[in-house]
Amino acid sequence: MIKANDPNIRSWIKVAKNSDFPIQNIPFGIFSKGRIKARPATIIGDTVIDLKALADLGFFDSVDFNKKVFNEPTLNEFLKLGKSTWRAIRERLSDLFNKKNKELQDDENAKDKVLHAADEIEMLMPVRVRDYTDFYSSKEHATNVGTMFRDPENALLPNWLHIPIGYHGRASSIVVSGTPLHRPKGQTRPNPEEPPVFGPCRLLDFELEMGFITGQGKPLGENIPLEEADDYIFGLVLFNDWSARDIQKWEYVPLGPFLGKSFGSSISPWIVTLDALEPFRMRPTKREVPILPYLDGKANRRINVNLEVQIQPEDQEAHTVSRSNLKYMYWTIEQQLAHHTINGCNINAGDMMASGTISGTKPDSYGSMLELSWKGTKPLSMPDGSERKFLKDGDTVILKGYAEKDGVRIGFGEVTGKVLPAL
Amino acid sequence: MIKANDPNIRSWIKVAKNSDFPIQNIPFGIFSKGRIKARPATIIGDTVIDLKALADLGFFDSVDFNKKVFNEPTLNEFLKLGKSTWRAIRERLSDLFNKKNKELQDDENAKDKVLHAADEIEMLMPVRVRDYTDFYSSKEHATNVGTMFRDPENALLPNWLHIPIGYHGRASSIVVSGTPLHRPKGQTRPNPEEPPVFGPCRLLDFELEMGFITGQGKPLGENIPLEEADDYIFGLVLFNDWSARDIQKWEYVPLGPFLGKSFGSSISPWIVTLDALEPFRMRPTKREVPILPYLDGKANRRINVNLEVQIQPEDQEAHTVSRSNLKYMYWTIEQQLAHHTINGCNINAGDMMASGTISGTKPDSYGSMLELSWKGTKPLSMPDGSERKFLKDGDTVILKGYAEKDGVRIGFGEVTGKVLPAL
Repeated sequence: MIKANDPNIRSWIKVAKNSDFPIQNIPFGIFSKGRIKARPATIIGDTVIDLKALADLGFFDSVDFNKKVFNEPTLNEFLKLGKSTWRAIRERLSDLFNKKNKELQDDENAKDKVLHAADEIEMLMPVRVRDYTDFYSSKEHATNVGTMFRDPENALLPNWLHIPIGYHGRASSIVVSGTPLHRPKGQTRPNPEEPPVFGPCRLLDFELEMGFITGQGKPLGENIPLEEADDYIFGLVLFNDWSARDIQKWEYVPLGPFLGKSFGSSISPWIVTLDALEPFRMRPTKREVPILPYLDGKANRRINVNLEVQIQPEDQEAHTVSRSNLKYMYWTIEQQLAHHTINGCNINAGDMMASGTISGTKPDSYGSMLELSWKGTKPLSMPDGSERKFLKDGDTVILKGYAEKDGVRIGFGEVTGKVLPAL
Repeated sequence: MIKANDPNIRSWIKVAKNSDFPIQNIPFGIFSKGRIKARPATIIGDTVIDLKALADLGFFDSVDFNKKVFNEPTLNEFLKLGKSTWRAIRERLSDLFNKKNKELQDDENAKDKVLHAADEIEMLMPVRVRDYTDFYSSKEHATNVGTMFRDPENALLPNWLHIPIGYHGRASSIVVSGTPLHRPKGQTRPNPEEPPVFGPCRLLDFELEMGFITGQGKPLGENIPLEEADDYIFGLVLFNDWSARDIQKWEYVPLGPFLGKSFGSSISPWIVTLDALEPFRMRPTKREVPILPYLDGKANRRINVNLEVQIQPEDQEAHTVSRSNLKYMYWTIEQQLAHHTINGCNINAGDMMASGTISGTKPDSYGSMLELSWKGTKPLSMPDGSERKFLKDGDTVILKGYAEKDGVRIGFGEVTGKVLPAL
């Protein structure tokens, strides 16, 4: 049992009943505020905690690690410390902010230096993303796409049940929640009898995903076996893999999605640790065909995270268009990482690996407009009477997620992004 | 006219007749030697020139830039300086090592600190590769692959003549020349009637490519027009895109190559600047269909670089298996960069963009074993009487390249990599 996960712990920092960030969460991120340019932090309730300030005041002296990682503008150096240190730091934070602990609680001077109201700071990219990989691990999503674009009778391709299919993505354009994105321009071929045309994307979409962030891996040539995978996974974020369906359709054969994806992906700012998610792990769904031994084992566990997608048209209320769950993934994050490295591919601290669109079994749990509107044939009705087949300029897409059990809610906050007109 | 390219300049450093590195080249790389861990350098003939030592001695005082970029273990910070500074530094080096210049030539003490024999140093990765993209820009290669795996009558896919097709690759596993690579293991399906199997790759291949390395681009959302592309391209290297054909075949539909590529790619250590290649530029081949305006313009120029592939079996001489040329690319590097950013995708200093396999029109100019042995149906004969359909353990693959005109040879050196048995 990870002590920090004890549902009975209460913090001396005030935490609202439905907060995503009780003391059992302790996620990690990077914040800025005035002269503080970019620095590691955690959050309890609505209070952001400056980890460098804590270290400077000696509150981490009992934990053996290089405190300079908290001077860095990203978490990459922190991620190199490895699981046992990540865990020791989280346990120390759990202890320090426990109601029973007076060390900081009674030191008003120190609290002034350490604590910030969440609405007075800005959250930045938590990591400089090294390599980014996107998987395709929801069977429902792969089946829906196969049904729409290929053959409903053979919707899943022959490799899908054997391989956690994935592809390399673009790291440079991953942005933090709140960053608006311009509608991309590009080449499409709306009429297969005519030459391609150039212009703004007409079929702009979101994809409801989650992504995990890795620590430092092994040298090139060595693999990370399934049973060791969790040691290299730091935590997870919400991930919106914005997609330009018309650009993607024309470009993606035979080498995969490229400009249909690389104009931007958005992540939530707080990385929720795998440790904090431990109480919400589940066994995988039953395999439909036997899988090879390197992908099979007890280390495979799903995570039960409730997910929600909202669209907020300009100057209107947000409207929920989908509710899904991370548990719908057929392939686990352990299988993804074991597969990714089985050929000797090395991973670095700060790699990002996303799940692929997480669609559930029912139409209102699909994770993209492509599926929700079934290729535009079933438009969604919005509260203002308008319809959505795909995203409009001015729409803000909001993804939210949380796990809940025994009265403890471990939340991810949200990732938002507004669609601006094409430049 | 770039002054440093003047064919009449001679250096006071000795340069052998067929050297890849006359004073007209001045490529950039990272070297180490004993206590010098990793530091920027250039090379003339067989003499490696320590750029930090030059800066410390004041030899760059006439050029306005932050000299600290030469303290860095990679060229990434140098690459952020931009084209006019890259050019000024190269011009200064051309001037300093010109036979007519006595500043350093007559200073034995300074020369001791600056100059190293090439066989006494080690070359390292020149950049920490940020994002890596692989294109697919040789029409002959795309046609050969389409003929073998799809339909000889429609070998080129419908999008190929309209789009410089590319895909995101794995940056973490790009290694410098001389780094051996283990044969990857993975999942393949040799018999389509049977379940997939796991084991070492059986169809290991090289791909003859070149890659360009970028400077710092524009903010996310903005594009780099064709006419500006050359301002953001620092230089080129030789690139061996090792490929596991059997792994690739089973995994790549629908999202593209993944583990069949990500176990390793090898680059030559010296980045030859685009400026040094200016005399070898050519107009593009005729477009076979009209292309969209964002890909069309005078900025499109090919580069005439002679390329050679050798295979050196264990304890034997190297044997040339292919001669090709960068000029066979249908899509230019300017088109690649303009296309890559047309959707607003941002590029960073240190991004790598490779050409895709460069195959010529004749069978002895193909850039991969897949094509040279035509899927294994026409094995190559080696001098020792053995045959090669694909690569064997112990084989070293050597790529070489040079441009030549007016008695000046601008070479890339070589990229070598040895195949070690699977772990």
